[in-house]
Amino acid sequence: MLSPLKRLLLGRPLPTSAARRERLTRVTGLAVLSSDALSSVAYATDAMLEALAPAGLLAIGFARPLALVIAALLITVTFSYRQTIHAYPQGGGAYIVAKDNLGTIAGLVAATALLIDYVLTVAVSVSAGVSAIVSAAPSLDGARVPMAVAFIGVIAWGNLRGIRQSGRIFAAPTYAFIVSVGLLLAVGVWRAGAGQMGPQAASAPSADAAMVGIGAFLVLHAFANGCTAMTGVEAISNGIPAFEKPEADNAAATLVVMALILATMFLGVSFFSVRLNVVPHGHETVLSQLGRAIFGGRNPLYLALQVTTTAILVLAANTSYADFPRLASILARDGFAPVQFTHRGDRLAFSNGIGLLTLMAVALVILFNARELRLIPLYAVGVFLSFTLSQAGMVARARRRREPGWQWRSGMNAVGAASTATVFAIFVMAKFREGAWVIVLLIPMGVWILLTIARHYRLTARALQLPEHPPAGPRHHVIVVIVPDLNRLVASMVAYARRLGDDVRAVHVGMDAGRARALQDKWPQWGQGTSLTVLESPHRSFVEPVLTYLERVEEERSQQLITILIPELRPRRWWQAILHSRWSEQLRSELKGRTHVTVVASFEWPLRR
Amino acid sequence: MLSPLKRLLLGRPLPTSAARRERLTRVTGLAVLSSDALSSVAYATDAMLEALAPAGLLAIGFARPLALVIAALLITVTFSYRQTIHAYPQGGGAYIVAKDNLGTIAGLVAATALLIDYVLTVAVSVSAGVSAIVSAAPSLDGARVPMAVAFIGVIAWGNLRGIRQSGRIFAAPTYAFIVSVGLLLAVGVWRAGAGQMGPQAASAPSADAAMVGIGAFLVLHAFANGCTAMTGVEAISNGIPAFEKPEADNAAATLVVMALILATMFLGVSFFSVRLNVVPHGHETVLSQLGRAIFGGRNPLYLALQVTTTAILVLAANTSYADFPRLASILARDGFAPVQFTHRGDRLAFSNGIGLLTLMAVALVILFNARELRLIPLYAVGVFLSFTLSQAGMVARARRRREPGWQWRSGMNAVGAASTATVFAIFVMAKFREGAWVIVLLIPMGVWILLTIARHYRLTARALQLPEHPPAGPRHHVIVVIVPDLNRLVASMVAYARRLGDDVRAVHVGMDAGRARALQDKWPQWGQGTSLTVLESPHRSFVEPVLTYLERVEEERSQQLITILIPELRPRRWWQAILHSRWSEQLRSELKGRTHVTVVASFEWPLRR
Repeated sequence: MLSPLKRLLLGRPLPTSAARRERLTRVTGLAVLSSDALSSVAYATDAMLEALAPAGLLAIGFARPLALVIAALLITVTFSYRQTIHAYPQGGGAYIVAKDNLGTIAGLVAATALLIDYVLTVAVSVSAGVSAIVSAAPSLDGARVPMAVAFIGVIAWGNLRGIRQSGRIFAAPTYAFIVSVGLLLAVGVWRAGAGQMGPQAASAPSADAAMVGIGAFLVLHAFANGCTAMTGVEAISNGIPAFEKPEADNAAATLVVMALILATMFLGVSFFSVRLNVVPHGHETVLSQLGRAIFGGRNPLYLALQVTTTAILVLAANTSYADFPRLASILARDGFAPVQFTHRGDRLAFSNGIGLLTLMAVALVILFNARELRLIPLYAVGVFLSFTLSQAGMVARARRRREPGWQWRSGMNAVGAASTATVFAIFVMAKFREGAWVIVLLIPMGVWILLTIARHYRLTARALQLPEHPPAGPRHHVIVVIVPDLNRLVASMVAYARRLGDDVRAVHVGMDAGRARALQDKWPQWGQGTSLTVLESPHRSFVEPVLTYLERVEEERSQQLITILIPELRPRRWWQAILHSRWSEQLRSELKGRTHVTVVASFEWPLRR
Repeated sequence: MLSPLKRLLLGRPLPTSAARRERLTRVTGLAVLSSDALSSVAYATDAMLEALAPAGLLAIGFARPLALVIAALLITVTFSYRQTIHAYPQGGGAYIVAKDNLGTIAGLVAATALLIDYVLTVAVSVSAGVSAIVSAAPSLDGARVPMAVAFIGVIAWGNLRGIRQSGRIFAAPTYAFIVSVGLLLAVGVWRAGAGQMGPQAASAPSADAAMVGIGAFLVLHAFANGCTAMTGVEAISNGIPAFEKPEADNAAATLVVMALILATMFLGVSFFSVRLNVVPHGHETVLSQLGRAIFGGRNPLYLALQVTTTAILVLAANTSYADFPRLASILARDGFAPVQFTHRGDRLAFSNGIGLLTLMAVALVILFNARELRLIPLYAVGVFLSFTLSQAGMVARARRRREPGWQWRSGMNAVGAASTATVFAIFVMAKFREGAWVIVLLIPMGVWILLTIARHYRLTARALQLPEHPPAGPRHHVIVVIVPDLNRLVASMVAYARRLGDDVRAVHVGMDAGRARALQDKWPQWGQGTSLTVLESPHRSFVEPVLTYLERVEEERSQQLITILIPELRPRRWWQAILHSRWSEQLRSELKGRTHVTVVASFEWPLRR
């Protein structure tokens, strides 16, 4: 019934042969793979300032040194990831690098951390996109959740349909956002130079003054929040095979360009926030406040900034829609996740991964009322754990392989790993009570689930191992025929059963004494030589007596195989099925729990006019 | 998984032999079968006065003559029903009487009308019971719906569990209610006689004065509303076989006593309402207002009145729980309703009827916010239609049989039929726009559904008619074996298939070119002489290629029978089922739509440790 609707929404199914990869240039690659990283500018400064704000205006000044530290960290991680790109030109996700070099558990920890963070990326990015809209149009504040769910719905739909020519779709919003923010910063610098933004407020705090008022914990908290600017940096090293040849060189160059753009934008936004005394509050984002202050009101330039911000945030959510299903399919291929994640849907997308991601992201958005700042305590914990594992894996790899220049390379990675490990530790400490504890609990739980799944697949494979010789089949075959009544269907079924073997036993569950007697009377004429057993059913249950009977048959001899034949009317229309008793379905479902019936067969009888 | 919970709630299953009927004396019979009728006193006067109130205080005076007319009508119907009791001592429900004497359609109209009214009786009675509670404790007004749903839940639970010794349970509340209302009226008469209730208000309206101010339509409306007092009168004639011998005589005597009590209570309550200028409003029922006025405040006598009122109203809802499932089972036995309504559950109750009634009553209570006065426009339309059909059926019966004294008897019934037909017509006219139109639409729809169901059962019976001789079975047997992979399960299944017949065809859906080739290479060793066909699946669908293949097999020859064998892993735990692809279930469900495969068999392979 749903099929025409599905066709309309998703289009015709695509043949497997249509699967081909679009190759990315450096220009399109930056657009496709950096929206997640660059869009962090839309919320990282907010998150940092929000942590500082409770300590008063003075504390805000601390944002400047923090932003510098974060930018330096970003550059460090970037150069560490360049090593990974050259070492894993086929795409070095944290799961693969950690599993290869540090072992399965490390790989699974990285994978779980990433899966959790992909879900959070969708929720945070879409919520931040909604915040950009609400900043420009405050009257929409009441519709945050519906807007966020609608965005997720559109992204999921696009991904289920399979996005073609993705490069071109992505290029426009990403570059438009870079241009918008660049313009904002340029105009800001120019107007500040021309003295048009008024003298710097007398109270404008310096870091030293701030230091007096606030404690180290607050600083660490703000640092951890600001580090969300670094989320998404790993996307390019995951996507290397999508680049034109030479893939690794192109990817590495794109990564460096992206990191420089990101660092510039984040520093610019953070510095102007301090300069203009922008404090984040629930109704307007920092970027929107800066836009109004620098562009001078809600004019077209400001609106362009808000529109491009929303667009790149939605695109950032979209990158999780590429990464989550792909990682789930890799885990499934390796036997750690349900095999269904490897199935490609009608349009060649990993539909099951897309569906699961959508469900969880929608749940998060509803739970957190589509407010990205509330999600920040959970966010990026997983990212920094996977960064750390990936880079530690690179160190281990270099030490093992000892290729020329390995000391220098592994040094780079070691610095990266140490930095991100420190950030991870700060994250967990600073935000533990606010919500990071959830992630700290979820990651080992996730690893345990992946290991349990792997164990089941291993045991199944062992149970299904081929024997040495083709099996000869069982010595004896018992065919049990369920006879609810005497009619044309049952008569045909008995004739069929007689063909299957010699030991055919008809069984009737006696619910109605009169009917059972009538059946016994007529059986010699219609039973084709089979015996008929009438089972007592004092409690009017159809299924119980049959199961008890089968247990008795089972005990008769070993090395036998039992086939049970169940008559089944096949009505012409769906509603007609409601008019017939469901005992056959009940029986089938109960038989699943018993191990002694090997073949459960429905003898089907179509009802025609 | 649900089974232990079910046992706890419902108790152990009862054997069919435990089904026996408790015989009722006149005293217990009155208690068991009259709660529905007597409880009408709790809302009928309210409904009547509510229709008059908008025309002003003067109009209220009209309640007295209306109450007298309704009481007279009640006595007429009672004597008409005495005829039915003697004519149908095995229980003469309106469906049976109308079907026997006026034809199937008339019977089904009566049945539909009754089924609808049984649902409404539950909703109205439980809502009125909640109103009695809220009248005594106004702070509970916000919890109307939860209280009503809880009452319905308890009644449904009791009926699913099977109520034993029902006579004793029922006797207490019914007689307590009679005593409470009797006391109310007696104290009222005594205090009025002693002049303790003050002189009758100067403005106390007389019927003549009222007539000036109000139109005929309003009077008819009030009359129709007041006639809800007569609902439930038919219960005794439905329940004759439950009485002690001589059943009919005992039932007839009980009916007359009940009618007299009901008429007295209804007249008393209505007259005192006029005398004390009681106008119904949303927060307090008429009976509660009378109780406070006559007993002099919220004292124990008043509280007893409210408690017994609630109790008898809940019991009244309970009578629908006996009548609805029984009527549904009779309709199902006659082939007009789904056969599931004839099944007795673990505790010998008609569980499916109980479940359906509960669902619909809860929906009504939620929809109408548990306010019985809002439900009144829908209520009793069906009752009076079924009264009319039942008595018209008795007239037709007498005229056909012409037994001694038939003129006198049928005259009685004719007067009854004419009266109730008039009431029915007034109902539809006066309350059409307020909601009666829903019932006027639902009744023909219901009849159409019952006839459609009957047609399906007739066609099914014809399709299943036994042939003249036992069938010989098909000439040719094709066994199609689905081979998703080569493993121990598949090898055993092929060995089994070889036993079933000679024409065994293994089929593999090629989703992965490498795996398909490996399978083809190994098949000569493991296929036991069967052929292997690899089906192309460009769109990665498992089901479509199999269905297309089966169509080709179907076209090969006529007079053949196709068995399809599907391998099925049977995991040890429920969650393990999630880890395996569901193509076998998809295939089975799609096969239902195709008519050419006769036997669909699962070859099951239990996974052990």
